[in-house]
Amino acid sequence: MKIDIMQDMMNTNLHYAAENKAAFAANGIYAVNVLGSPGAGKTTLLETTFHYLQGKIKSAVVEGDLATARDAARIAACGVPVIQINTEGGCHLDAKMVAKTLGGFDLPKLDLMVIENVGNLVCPAAYDLGEHEKILVMSLTEGGDKPAKYPTAFLAAAAVVLNKFDLLPYIGVDAEKMKKEILDINPQIKIFETSCREGQVFGVDKFAEYLLQKAGKNSAKA
Amino acid sequence: MKIDIMQDMMNTNLHYAAENKAAFAANGIYAVNVLGSPGAGKTTLLETTFHYLQGKIKSAVVEGDLATARDAARIAACGVPVIQINTEGGCHLDAKMVAKTLGGFDLPKLDLMVIENVGNLVCPAAYDLGEHEKILVMSLTEGGDKPAKYPTAFLAAAAVVLNKFDLLPYIGVDAEKMKKEILDINPQIKIFETSCREGQVFGVDKFAEYLLQKAGKNSAKA
Repeated sequence: MKIDIMQDMMNTNLHYAAENKAAFAANGIYAVNVLGSPGAGKTTLLETTFHYLQGKIKSAVVEGDLATARDAARIAACGVPVIQINTEGGCHLDAKMVAKTLGGFDLPKLDLMVIENVGNLVCPAAYDLGEHEKILVMSLTEGGDKPAKYPTAFLAAAAVVLNKFDLLPYIGVDAEKMKKEILDINPQIKIFETSCREGQVFGVDKFAEYLLQKAGKNSAKA
Repeated sequence: MKIDIMQDMMNTNLHYAAENKAAFAANGIYAVNVLGSPGAGKTTLLETTFHYLQGKIKSAVVEGDLATARDAARIAACGVPVIQINTEGGCHLDAKMVAKTLGGFDLPKLDLMVIENVGNLVCPAAYDLGEHEKILVMSLTEGGDKPAKYPTAFLAAAAVVLNKFDLLPYIGVDAEKMKKEILDINPQIKIFETSCREGQVFGVDKFAEYLLQKAGKNSAKA
């Protein structure tokens, strides 16, 4: 009975995920589901990325957090349309939550939809939101042992952004070993190395180009 | 029906939590449930803390991770009895998982049981494992906005350890503002400031003293 209910929840999620997927396809939108631990730097990465994407593609963001609209305010300040979801304790976004937000966007005008999930390296990996791909953001400060200890997210993601590379000199992390461990888990994963710290930004251009290429390829408006 | 099942799961958890609580009480053990994001520095804090507690109290550890026995190996190297739980995708420990490990320890000889939860700032806060208190570990690098965005864990914890204070000069975090935001959510919470980085260890002695006092007060063997 417990399993039946879980199956029910997953089926409901898949139903809405399919609806979202259809909405993205009908409007030529490339959708990414951005996940990672709290403080991996997801919102800062998006702010910095939108700086590069400005004038090149039309983006929008769905923001997920337990509470507050702080991240949405930061994205709105970049001139990007954004809707905040507060899960009020919920540990991940589900496809129904995202479906409810889509009516709030001018979808035919968009090329790229970024869904920033609740900060959590575990649960969000299990839920399809209708996205084309999951992108994992991880701070170097989380430590080199995390890929092996939290393999689910690394298996689910098409790309991983190793963020806060500016802190490498001050922490005991072997970045090359970390990348090897990631590729041991998922040999197909694309790895980016970034720093989004003011005055020390690097690598974000490559990540922005990646999104641009994906959204451009997908978009009927390109 | 969904609510019934959730209630069932929570009742099962409470049943085992009560059993664990009784086992800890019968053996004069103070039990803490340590939670926090992946990479907050939970295991390193424990390693450093056990260095201070050596010869003062008898400790043991239950380690929770999705996969690998790496953390258990690190704790065992400190000379502390440890049992690793692999949740295989599960986002938190539950009381039944912990109950199953207790037979593997020499409980009458212990003063302090540390349960290190799966790295996750959200889900572990909702599950009672039979512990006396929850202790939240948070890396300063996670950013000052996390208390307001993830209030559940801060509400559930009796103490929070703000770790990786050695990195303060290199990150854009206002530690005083962060502490104020934590106290706004939970005015009763006890705050520790620590660095566990080799050669730059500080604050861990105060945290160790706190555990010593709690375990000493509780222990019939003290």
